[in-house]
Amino acid sequence: MKSTATAMIDSFPTDVTADRTLLAECITAAAECAQACTACADACLAEPQVTQLASCIRTNLDCADACAATSRAVSRHTGHDTSTVRALVRACAQACHSCAEECDRHAQAYEHCRLSAEACRRCHDACRALLSALG
Amino acid sequence: MKSTATAMIDSFPTDVTADRTLLAECITAAAECAQACTACADACLAEPQVTQLASCIRTNLDCADACAATSRAVSRHTGHDTSTVRALVRACAQACHSCAEECDRHAQAYEHCRLSAEACRRCHDACRALLSALG
Amino acid sequence: MKSTATAMIDSFPTDVTADRTLLAECITAAAECAQACTACADACLAEPQVTQLASCIRTNLDCADACAATSRAVSRHTGHDTSTVRALVRACAQACHSCAEECDRHAQAYEHCRLSAEACRRCHDACRALLSALG
Amino acid sequence: MKSTATAMIDSFPTDVTADRTLLAECITAAAECAQACTACADACLAEPQVTQLASCIRTNLDCADACAATSRAVSRHTGHDTSTVRALVRACAQACHSCAEECDRHAQAYEHCRLSAEACRRCHDACRALLSALG
Repeated sequence: MKSTATAMIDSFPTDVTADRTLLAECITAAAECAQACTACADACLAEPQVTQLASCIRTNLDCADACAATSRAVSRHTGHDTSTVRALVRACAQACHSCAEECDRHAQAYEHCRLSAEACRRCHDACRALLSALG
Repeated sequence: MKSTATAMIDSFPTDVTADRTLLAECITAAAECAQACTACADACLAEPQVTQLASCIRTNLDCADACAATSRAVSRHTGHDTSTVRALVRACAQACHSCAEECDRHAQAYEHCRLSAEACRRCHDACRALLSALG
Repeated sequence: MKSTATAMIDSFPTDVTADRTLLAECITAAAECAQACTACADACLAEPQVTQLASCIRTNLDCADACAATSRAVSRHTGHDTSTVRALVRACAQACHSCAEECDRHAQAYEHCRLSAEACRRCHDACRALLSALG
Repeated sequence: MKSTATAMIDSFPTDVTADRTLLAECITAAAECAQACTACADACLAEPQVTQLASCIRTNLDCADACAATSRAVSRHTGHDTSTVRALVRACAQACHSCAEECDRHAQAYEHCRLSAEACRRCHDACRALLSALG
Protein backbone atom coordinates (compact mmCIF):
# COMPACT_ATOMS: atom_id res chain seq x y z
CA MET A 1 0.00 0.00 0.00
CA LYS A 2 1.13 3.51 -0.78
CA SER A 3 2.28 5.41 2.30
CA THR A 4 0.59 8.71 3.13
CA ALA A 5 3.83 10.56 2.38
CA THR A 6 4.00 9.01 -1.10
CA ALA A 7 0.31 9.68 -1.79
CA MET A 8 0.76 13.32 -0.76
CA ILE A 9 3.72 13.73 -3.12
CA ASP A 10 1.76 12.11 -5.97
CA SER A 11 -1.07 14.63 -5.45
CA PHE A 12 1.25 17.64 -5.68
CA PRO A 13 -0.12 19.95 -8.39
CA THR A 14 3.13 20.79 -10.15
CA ASP A 15 6.33 18.98 -11.04
CA VAL A 16 8.40 17.63 -8.20
CA THR A 17 12.03 18.09 -9.16
CA ALA A 18 13.56 15.67 -6.65
CA ASP A 19 13.13 11.89 -6.78
CA ARG A 20 9.72 11.02 -5.29
CA THR A 21 10.81 7.74 -3.71
CA LEU A 22 13.81 9.31 -2.00
CA LEU A 23 11.69 12.22 -0.74
CA ALA A 24 9.05 9.90 0.69
CA GLU A 25 11.65 7.66 2.32
CA CYS A 26 13.38 10.61 3.96
CA ILE A 27 10.09 12.09 5.21
CA THR A 28 8.96 8.76 6.67
CA ALA A 29 12.32 7.72 8.12
CA ALA A 30 12.74 11.11 9.81
CA ALA A 31 9.23 11.00 11.32
CA GLU A 32 9.84 7.46 12.60
CA CYS A 33 13.23 8.38 14.00
CA ALA A 34 11.82 11.45 15.77
CA GLN A 35 9.26 9.19 17.43
CA ALA A 36 11.76 6.45 18.34
CA CYS A 37 14.18 8.97 19.87
CA THR A 38 11.41 10.67 21.88
CA ALA A 39 10.28 7.28 23.20
CA CYS A 40 13.85 6.11 23.88
CA ALA A 41 14.55 9.25 25.94
CA ASP A 42 11.43 8.53 27.98
CA ALA A 43 12.32 4.86 28.43
CA CYS A 44 15.85 5.84 29.54
CA LEU A 45 14.24 8.09 32.19
CA ALA A 46 12.40 5.04 33.54
CA GLU A 47 15.57 2.93 33.90
CA PRO A 48 17.13 2.52 37.35
CA GLN A 49 20.53 3.44 35.83
CA VAL A 50 19.27 6.77 34.49
CA THR A 51 22.44 8.60 35.64
CA GLN A 52 24.47 6.64 33.11
CA LEU A 53 21.96 7.43 30.39
CA ALA A 54 21.90 11.24 30.70
CA SER A 55 24.01 11.69 27.59
CA CYS A 56 21.86 9.19 25.68
CA ILE A 57 18.70 11.10 26.66
CA ARG A 58 20.13 14.41 25.45
CA THR A 59 21.34 12.97 22.18
CA ASN A 60 17.91 11.43 21.65
CA LEU A 61 16.23 14.79 22.29
CA ASP A 62 18.57 16.63 19.89
CA CYS A 63 18.01 13.96 17.26
CA ALA A 64 14.21 14.07 17.69
CA ASP A 65 14.25 17.85 17.12
CA ALA A 66 16.49 17.62 14.05
CA CYS A 67 14.39 14.80 12.55
CA ALA A 68 11.06 16.55 13.19
CA ALA A 69 12.21 19.79 11.54
CA THR A 70 13.67 17.86 8.60
CA SER A 71 10.59 15.72 8.03
CA ARG A 72 8.53 18.92 7.83
CA ALA A 73 10.89 20.81 5.55
CA VAL A 74 11.26 17.86 3.15
CA SER A 75 7.44 17.59 3.08
CA ARG A 76 7.55 21.04 1.41
CA HIS A 77 9.23 19.49 -1.62
CA THR A 78 8.69 22.24 -4.02
CA GLY A 79 10.92 23.39 -6.82
CA HIS A 80 12.16 26.45 -4.93
CA ASP A 81 15.59 27.15 -3.46
CA THR A 82 16.71 23.89 -1.85
CA SER A 83 19.67 25.22 0.15
CA THR A 84 17.70 25.27 3.41
CA VAL A 85 16.30 21.78 2.88
CA ARG A 86 19.76 20.45 2.08
CA ALA A 87 21.25 22.10 5.18
CA LEU A 88 18.53 20.58 7.35
CA VAL A 89 18.89 17.11 5.82
CA ARG A 90 22.64 17.35 6.43
CA ALA A 91 22.06 18.35 10.07
CA CYS A 92 19.60 15.47 10.40
CA ALA A 93 22.13 12.97 9.03
CA GLN A 94 24.70 14.26 11.54
CA ALA A 95 22.22 14.05 14.43
CA CYS A 96 21.28 10.48 13.45
CA HIS A 97 24.93 9.48 13.17
CA SER A 98 25.73 10.79 16.67
CA CYS A 99 22.58 9.32 18.17
CA ALA A 100 23.11 5.89 16.60
CA GLU A 101 26.63 5.82 18.07
CA GLU A 102 25.44 6.83 21.53
CA CYS A 103 22.47 4.43 21.55
CA ASP A 104 24.69 1.59 20.29
CA ARG A 105 26.68 1.86 23.52
CA HIS A 106 23.58 0.81 25.47
CA ALA A 107 21.98 -1.45 22.87
CA GLN A 108 22.93 -4.70 24.58
CA ALA A 109 21.52 -3.60 27.90
CA TYR A 110 18.41 -1.85 26.64
CA GLU A 111 16.16 -2.92 23.78
CA HIS A 112 14.81 0.66 23.39
CA CYS A 113 18.35 1.90 22.72
CA ARG A 114 18.85 -0.85 20.14
CA LEU A 115 15.61 0.11 18.38
CA SER A 116 16.43 3.82 18.51
CA ALA A 117 19.89 3.17 17.02
CA GLU A 118 18.27 1.24 14.18
CA ALA A 119 15.78 4.03 13.46
CA CYS A 120 18.68 6.51 13.45
CA ARG A 121 20.63 4.44 10.93
CA ARG A 122 17.61 4.11 8.62
CA CYS A 123 17.06 7.87 8.79
CA HIS A 124 20.76 8.60 8.28
CA ASP A 125 20.79 6.45 5.15
CA ALA A 126 17.61 8.05 3.81
CA CYS A 127 19.09 11.52 4.39
CA ARG A 128 22.35 10.59 2.66
CA ALA A 129 20.49 9.13 -0.33
CA LEU A 130 18.35 12.25 -0.68
CA LEU A 131 21.39 14.53 -0.36
CA SER A 132 23.17 12.67 -3.17
CA ALA A 133 20.12 13.07 -5.39
CA LEU A 134 19.71 16.77 -4.57
CA GLY A 135 23.34 17.31 -5.58
CA MET B 1 5.24 -6.35 11.21
CA LYS B 2 5.32 -4.43 14.45
CA SER B 3 5.46 -0.66 13.96
CA THR B 4 8.34 1.26 15.54
CA ALA B 5 5.89 2.96 17.91
CA THR B 6 4.63 -0.42 19.15
CA ALA B 7 8.13 -1.85 19.49
CA MET B 8 9.19 1.19 21.52
CA ILE B 9 6.23 0.77 23.88
CA ASP B 10 6.98 -2.94 24.29
CA SER B 11 10.57 -2.12 25.28
CA PHE B 12 9.47 0.31 28.01
CA PRO B 13 11.12 -0.82 31.28
CA THR B 14 8.13 -0.43 33.61
CA ASP B 15 4.39 -0.99 33.41
CA VAL B 16 2.48 1.05 30.86
CA THR B 17 -0.87 1.89 32.43
CA ALA B 18 -2.72 2.86 29.25
CA ASP B 19 -3.70 0.41 26.50
CA ARG B 20 -0.62 -0.23 24.32
CA THR B 21 -2.54 -0.62 21.07
CA LEU B 22 -4.44 2.63 21.55
CA LEU B 23 -1.24 4.47 22.49
CA ALA B 24 0.59 3.21 19.41
CA GLU B 25 -2.35 4.01 17.13
CA CYS B 26 -2.60 7.57 18.46
CA ILE B 27 1.17 8.15 18.17
CA THR B 28 1.25 6.86 14.59
CA ALA B 29 -1.97 8.52 13.42
CA ALA B 30 -0.87 11.89 14.85
CA ALA B 31 2.56 11.66 13.18
CA GLU B 32 0.96 10.74 9.84
CA CYS B 33 -1.61 13.51 10.14
CA ALA B 34 1.08 16.08 10.97
CA GLN B 35 2.90 15.06 7.79
CA ALA B 36 -0.22 15.02 5.60
CA CYS B 37 -1.30 18.49 6.82
CA THR B 38 2.19 19.93 6.27
CA ALA B 39 2.23 18.50 2.73
CA CYS B 40 -1.36 19.60 2.01
CA ALA B 41 -0.54 23.18 3.04
CA ASP B 42 2.40 23.13 0.65
CA ALA B 43 0.35 21.63 -2.18
CA CYS B 44 -2.36 24.28 -1.63
CA LEU B 45 0.35 26.94 -2.00
CA ALA B 46 1.18 25.49 -5.43
CA GLU B 47 -2.44 25.65 -6.69
CA PRO B 48 -3.43 28.49 -9.04
CA GLN B 49 -6.47 29.14 -6.79
CA VAL B 50 -4.36 29.67 -3.68
CA THR B 51 -6.42 32.70 -2.59
CA GLN B 52 -9.41 30.43 -1.99
CA LEU B 53 -7.26 28.02 -0.04
CA ALA B 54 -5.80 30.45 2.52
CA SER B 55 -8.09 29.21 5.28
CA CYS B 56 -7.31 25.59 4.37
CA ILE B 57 -3.57 26.29 4.60
CA ARG B 58 -3.91 27.86 8.05
CA THR B 59 -6.08 25.06 9.37
CA ASN B 60 -3.55 22.55 8.03
CA LEU B 61 -0.70 24.38 9.77
CA ASP B 62 -2.58 24.54 13.09
CA CYS B 63 -3.45 20.86 12.80
CA ALA B 64 0.14 19.88 11.98
CA ASP B 65 1.37 21.68 15.11
CA ALA B 66 -1.29 20.12 17.36
CA CYS B 67 -0.60 16.63 15.96
CA ALA B 68 3.20 16.92 16.26
CA ALA B 69 3.02 18.01 19.91
CA THR B 70 0.49 15.28 20.69
CA SER B 71 2.48 12.52 19.01
CA ARG B 72 5.49 13.49 21.13
CA ALA B 73 3.61 13.78 24.43
CA VAL B 74 1.82 10.44 23.92
CA SER B 75 5.22 8.87 23.16
CA ARG B 76 6.08 9.70 26.79
CA HIS B 77 3.49 7.21 27.95
CA THR B 78 4.57 6.86 31.49
CA GLY B 79 2.42 6.32 34.55
CA HIS B 80 2.72 9.92 35.70
CA ASP B 81 0.06 12.65 35.79
CA THR B 82 -1.88 12.27 32.54
CA SER B 83 -3.80 15.57 32.66
CA THR B 84 -1.42 17.27 30.20
CA VAL B 85 -1.46 14.35 27.79
CA ARG B 86 -5.25 14.24 27.91
CA ALA B 87 -5.53 17.99 27.30
CA LEU B 88 -3.21 17.70 24.30
CA VAL B 89 -5.04 14.68 22.86
CA ARG B 90 -8.30 16.62 23.25
CA ALA B 91 -6.80 19.64 21.45
CA CYS B 92 -5.52 17.32 18.73
CA ALA B 93 -8.97 15.75 18.24
CA GLN B 94 -10.44 19.26 17.94
CA ALA B 95 -7.76 20.36 15.45
CA CYS B 96 -8.33 17.22 13.35
CA HIS B 97 -12.10 17.75 13.40
CA SER B 98 -11.79 21.35 12.17
CA CYS B 99 -9.17 20.45 9.57
CA ALA B 100 -11.14 17.48 8.21
CA GLU B 101 -14.17 19.78 7.76
CA GLU B 102 -12.14 22.46 6.00
CA CYS B 103 -10.28 20.00 3.75
CA ASP B 104 -13.53 18.22 2.88
CA ARG B 105 -14.74 21.45 1.27
CA HIS B 106 -11.93 21.15 -1.30
CA ALA B 107 -11.72 17.35 -1.49
CA GLN B 108 -13.46 17.03 -4.84
CA ALA B 109 -11.21 19.60 -6.47
CA TYR B 110 -7.93 18.59 -4.87
CA GLU B 111 -6.73 15.08 -4.11
CA HIS B 112 -4.27 16.40 -1.47
CA CYS B 113 -7.19 17.91 0.45
CA ARG B 114 -9.06 14.60 0.27
CA LEU B 115 -6.03 12.72 1.61
CA SER B 116 -5.45 15.27 4.34
CA ALA B 117 -9.10 15.06 5.44
CA GLU B 118 -8.77 11.27 5.66
CA ALA B 119 -5.60 11.48 7.75
CA CYS B 120 -7.37 13.98 10.05
CA ARG B 121 -10.30 11.63 10.53
CA ARG B 122 -8.05 8.67 11.33
CA CYS B 123 -6.16 10.78 13.86
CA HIS B 124 -9.38 12.18 15.33
CA ASP B 125 -10.71 8.66 15.87
CA ALA B 126 -7.44 7.45 17.41
CA CYS B 127 -7.45 10.46 19.78
CA ARG B 128 -11.07 9.82 20.78
CA ALA B 129 -10.38 6.12 21.41
CA LEU B 130 -7.35 6.92 23.56
CA LEU B 131 -9.28 9.58 25.51
CA SER B 132 -12.04 7.08 26.33
CA ALA B 133 -9.47 4.60 27.58
CA LEU B 134 -7.61 7.22 29.66
CA GLY B 135 -10.91 8.10 31.35
CA MET C 1 10.32 48.96 22.84
CA LYS C 2 7.71 46.98 20.96
CA SER C 3 8.31 43.23 21.04
CA THR C 4 8.64 41.37 17.74
CA ALA C 5 5.37 39.55 18.46
CA THR C 6 3.53 42.87 18.92
CA ALA C 7 5.11 44.40 15.82
CA MET C 8 4.10 41.36 13.77
CA ILE C 9 0.48 41.63 14.96
CA ASP C 10 0.44 45.36 14.18
CA SER C 11 1.59 44.65 10.61
CA PHE C 12 -1.20 42.13 9.99
CA PRO C 13 -3.07 43.24 6.84
CA THR C 14 -6.64 42.72 8.06
CA ASP C 15 -8.53 43.15 11.31
CA VAL C 16 -7.39 41.09 14.27
CA THR C 17 -10.50 40.09 16.17
CA ALA C 18 -8.82 39.13 19.45
CA ASP C 19 -7.14 41.60 21.81
CA ARG C 20 -3.66 42.38 20.45
CA THR C 21 -2.00 42.77 23.85
CA LEU C 22 -3.35 39.45 25.12
CA LEU C 23 -2.32 37.69 21.90
CA ALA C 24 1.22 39.07 22.07
CA GLU C 25 1.55 38.21 25.77
CA CYS C 26 0.42 34.64 25.18
CA ILE C 27 2.74 34.18 22.18
CA THR C 28 5.75 35.54 24.10
CA ALA C 29 5.02 33.78 27.40
CA ALA C 30 4.55 30.44 25.63
CA ALA C 31 7.81 30.81 23.68
CA GLU C 32 9.69 31.73 26.87
CA CYS C 33 8.13 28.87 28.80
CA ALA C 34 9.01 26.38 26.05
CA GLN C 35 12.62 27.53 26.28
CA ALA C 36 12.73 27.49 30.10
CA CYS C 37 11.26 23.98 30.26
CA THR C 38 13.67 22.66 27.62
CA ALA C 39 16.61 24.15 29.55
CA CYS C 40 15.28 22.94 32.93
CA ALA C 41 14.99 19.38 31.62
CA ASP C 42 18.60 19.58 30.47
CA ALA C 43 19.79 21.06 33.77
CA CYS C 44 17.93 18.30 35.68
CA LEU C 45 19.83 15.74 33.57
CA ALA C 46 23.10 17.30 34.78
CA GLU C 47 22.18 17.04 38.48
CA PRO C 48 23.68 14.20 40.56
CA GLN C 49 20.16 13.40 41.86
CA VAL C 50 18.74 12.89 38.38
CA THR C 51 16.80 9.76 39.44
CA GLN C 52 14.59 11.92 41.67
CA LEU C 53 14.05 14.37 38.83
CA ALA C 54 12.79 11.95 36.16
CA SER C 55 9.19 13.06 36.59
CA CYS C 56 10.26 16.72 36.50
CA ILE C 57 12.13 16.14 33.24
CA ARG C 58 9.12 14.50 31.61
CA THR C 59 6.74 17.19 32.75
CA ASN C 60 9.15 19.82 31.41
CA LEU C 61 9.31 18.05 28.03
CA ASP C 62 5.52 17.76 27.78
CA CYS C 63 5.15 21.42 28.74
CA ALA C 64 7.77 22.53 26.20
CA ASP C 65 5.88 20.72 23.43
CA ALA C 66 2.50 22.14 24.44
CA CYS C 67 3.93 25.68 24.70
CA ALA C 68 5.76 25.52 21.36
CA ALA C 69 2.65 24.36 19.48
CA THR C 70 0.51 27.00 21.22
CA SER C 71 2.91 29.85 20.54
CA ARG C 72 2.81 28.94 16.84
CA ALA C 73 -0.95 28.53 16.60
CA VAL C 74 -1.63 31.82 18.44
CA SER C 75 0.82 33.52 16.04
CA ARG C 76 -1.74 32.65 13.32
CA HIS C 77 -4.24 35.03 14.92
CA THR C 78 -6.59 35.33 12.06
CA GLY C 79 -10.34 35.77 12.13
CA HIS C 80 -11.00 32.12 11.19
CA ASP C 81 -12.45 29.33 13.34
CA THR C 82 -10.82 29.68 16.76
CA SER C 83 -11.84 26.32 18.24
CA THR C 84 -8.43 24.75 17.58
CA VAL C 85 -6.52 27.72 18.99
CA ARG C 86 -8.70 27.69 22.09
CA ALA C 87 -8.21 23.95 22.59
CA LEU C 88 -4.44 24.37 22.29
CA VAL C 89 -4.35 27.35 24.67
CA ARG C 90 -6.39 25.31 27.15
CA ALA C 91 -3.96 22.36 26.84
CA CYS C 92 -1.06 24.78 27.28
CA ALA C 93 -2.59 26.23 30.46
CA GLN C 94 -3.01 22.68 31.80
CA ALA C 95 0.56 21.72 30.91
CA CYS C 96 1.89 24.87 32.60
CA HIS C 97 -0.20 24.22 35.71
CA SER C 98 1.13 20.65 36.05
CA CYS C 99 4.71 21.70 35.29
CA ALA C 100 4.66 24.62 37.75
CA GLU C 101 3.46 22.23 40.49
CA GLU C 102 6.13 19.65 39.71
CA CYS C 103 8.95 22.21 39.42
CA ASP C 104 7.83 23.90 42.67
CA ARG C 105 8.64 20.66 44.49
CA HIS C 106 12.31 21.10 43.56
CA ALA C 107 12.47 24.91 43.56
CA GLN C 108 14.29 25.22 46.87
CA ALA C 109 16.97 22.77 45.83
CA TYR C 110 17.39 23.86 42.22
CA GLU C 111 17.31 27.40 40.86
CA HIS C 112 16.48 26.11 37.35
CA CYS C 113 13.32 24.47 38.69
CA ARG C 114 12.35 27.72 40.43
CA LEU C 115 12.82 29.67 37.20
CA SER C 116 10.94 27.09 35.14
CA ALA C 117 8.01 27.16 37.61
CA GLU C 118 7.89 30.94 37.29
CA ALA C 119 7.88 30.81 33.48
CA CYS C 120 5.08 28.21 33.66
CA ARG C 121 2.98 30.45 35.91
CA ARG C 122 3.45 33.46 33.62
CA CYS C 123 2.43 31.38 30.61
CA HIS C 124 -0.52 29.84 32.48
CA ASP C 125 -1.81 33.31 33.36
CA ALA C 126 -1.34 34.59 29.81
CA CYS C 127 -3.23 31.56 28.46
CA ARG C 128 -6.07 32.05 30.93
CA ALA C 129 -6.34 35.75 30.09
CA LEU C 130 -6.47 35.02 26.37
CA LEU C 131 -9.05 32.26 26.87
CA SER C 132 -11.34 34.65 28.79
CA ALA C 133 -11.07 37.19 25.99
CA LEU C 134 -11.71 34.60 23.25
CA GLY C 135 -14.87 33.54 25.09
CA MET D 1 17.05 42.64 33.32
CA LYS D 2 18.44 39.17 32.69
CA SER D 3 16.55 37.25 30.01
CA THR D 4 15.03 33.87 30.90
CA ALA D 5 17.50 32.16 28.57
CA THR D 6 20.46 33.77 30.37
CA ALA D 7 19.03 32.98 33.82
CA MET D 8 18.54 29.34 32.80
CA ILE D 9 22.16 29.08 31.61
CA ASP D 10 23.41 30.67 34.84
CA SER D 11 21.50 28.06 36.88
CA PHE D 12 23.08 25.14 35.01
CA PRO D 13 24.68 22.82 37.60
CA THR D 14 27.96 22.14 35.82
CA ASP D 15 30.39 24.07 33.66
CA VAL D 16 29.08 25.45 30.39
CA THR D 17 31.89 25.14 27.88
CA ALA D 18 30.56 27.55 25.26
CA ASP D 19 30.30 31.32 25.77
CA ARG D 20 27.15 32.03 27.81
CA THR D 21 26.33 35.33 26.11
CA LEU D 22 26.57 33.83 22.62
CA LEU D 23 24.48 30.82 23.65
CA ALA D 24 21.74 33.03 25.13
CA GLU D 25 21.74 35.33 22.10
CA CYS D 26 21.41 32.41 19.70
CA ILE D 27 18.61 30.79 21.74
CA THR D 28 16.66 34.06 21.95
CA ALA D 29 17.24 35.18 18.36
CA ALA D 30 16.18 31.77 17.02
CA ALA D 31 13.00 31.73 19.12
CA GLU D 32 12.13 35.28 17.99
CA CYS D 33 12.86 34.45 14.35
CA ALA D 34 10.70 31.30 14.52
CA GLN D 35 7.83 33.44 15.79
CA ALA D 36 8.36 36.24 13.26
CA CYS D 37 8.47 33.77 10.34
CA THR D 38 5.35 31.95 11.53
CA ALA D 39 3.51 35.27 11.82
CA CYS D 40 4.84 36.55 8.48
CA ALA D 41 3.61 33.40 6.71
CA ASP D 42 0.18 33.97 8.22
CA ALA D 43 0.16 37.66 7.30
CA CYS D 44 1.18 36.79 3.71
CA LEU D 45 -1.82 34.43 3.57
CA ALA D 46 -4.06 37.39 4.43
CA GLU D 47 -2.71 39.60 1.63
CA PRO D 48 -4.76 40.01 -1.57
CA GLN D 49 -1.61 39.23 -3.60
CA VAL D 50 -1.05 35.87 -1.89
CA THR D 51 -0.22 34.13 -5.18
CA GLN D 52 2.94 36.22 -5.48
CA LEU D 53 3.87 35.39 -1.89
CA ALA D 54 3.72 31.58 -2.09
CA SER D 55 7.49 31.25 -2.16
CA CYS D 56 7.81 33.71 0.74
CA ILE D 57 5.34 31.67 2.80
CA ARG D 58 7.24 28.45 2.19
CA THR D 59 10.59 29.98 3.01
CA ASN D 60 9.11 31.41 6.20
CA LEU D 61 7.77 27.99 7.20
CA ASP D 62 11.12 26.27 6.53
CA CYS D 63 12.92 28.98 8.49
CA ALA D 64 10.49 28.72 11.42
CA ASP D 65 11.11 24.96 11.64
CA ALA D 66 14.91 25.32 11.44
CA CYS D 67 14.90 28.09 14.07
CA ALA D 68 12.61 26.22 16.48
CA ALA D 69 14.74 23.05 16.37
CA THR D 70 17.92 25.09 16.78
CA SER D 71 16.64 27.13 19.71
CA ARG D 72 15.80 23.87 21.49
CA ALA D 73 19.06 22.10 20.74
CA VAL D 74 21.18 25.10 21.79
CA SER D 75 19.13 25.23 25.03
CA ARG D 76 20.70 21.83 25.78
CA HIS D 77 24.09 23.52 26.05
CA THR D 78 25.96 20.80 27.77
CA GLY D 79 29.55 19.79 27.36
CA HIS D 80 28.72 16.73 25.28
CA ASP D 81 29.38 16.09 21.60
CA THR D 82 28.56 19.36 19.85
CA SER D 83 28.55 18.12 16.26
CA THR D 84 24.75 17.93 16.11
CA VAL D 85 24.29 21.37 17.65
CA ARG D 86 26.80 22.83 15.20
CA ALA D 87 25.09 21.18 12.22
CA LEU D 88 21.73 22.57 13.35
CA VAL D 89 23.09 26.08 13.95
CA ARG D 90 24.64 25.95 10.47
CA ALA D 91 21.31 24.87 8.95
CA CYS D 92 19.60 27.65 10.88
CA ALA D 93 22.03 30.27 9.56
CA GLN D 94 21.37 29.01 6.03
CA ALA D 95 17.59 29.09 6.52
CA CYS D 96 17.78 32.64 7.90
CA HIS D 97 19.97 33.76 5.01
CA SER D 98 17.52 32.42 2.41
CA CYS D 99 14.49 33.75 4.25
CA ALA D 100 15.98 37.22 4.75
CA GLU D 101 16.68 37.40 0.99
CA GLU D 102 13.17 36.28 0.06
CA CYS D 103 11.45 38.58 2.59
CA ASP D 104 13.61 41.52 1.47
CA ARG D 105 12.02 41.25 -1.97
CA HIS D 106 8.66 42.15 -0.42
CA ALA D 107 9.87 44.42 2.38
CA GLN D 108 8.85 47.66 0.72
CA ALA D 109 5.33 46.44 0.05
CA TYR D 110 4.76 44.60 3.31
CA GLU D 111 5.88 45.66 6.77
CA HIS D 112 5.60 42.04 8.05
CA CYS D 113 8.13 40.94 5.43
CA ARG D 114 10.47 43.76 6.48
CA LEU D 115 10.20 42.71 10.13
CA SER D 116 10.68 39.03 9.31
CA ALA D 117 13.79 39.82 7.24
CA GLU D 118 15.21 41.75 10.19
CA ALA D 119 14.54 38.89 12.61
CA CYS D 120 16.23 36.51 10.15
CA ARG D 121 19.33 38.70 9.94
CA ARG D 122 19.60 38.97 13.73
CA CYS D 123 19.29 35.19 14.03
CA HIS D 124 21.76 34.59 11.20
CA ASP D 125 24.32 36.81 12.93
CA ALA D 126 23.76 35.12 16.30
CA CYS D 127 24.21 31.70 14.67
CA ARG D 128 27.39 32.78 12.91
CA ALA D 129 28.83 34.23 16.13
CA LEU D 130 28.06 31.04 18.06
CA LEU D 131 29.54 28.87 15.30
CA SER D 132 32.81 30.85 15.39
CA ALA D 133 33.00 30.37 19.15
CA LEU D 134 32.22 26.64 18.99
CA GLY D 135 35.07 26.21 16.51
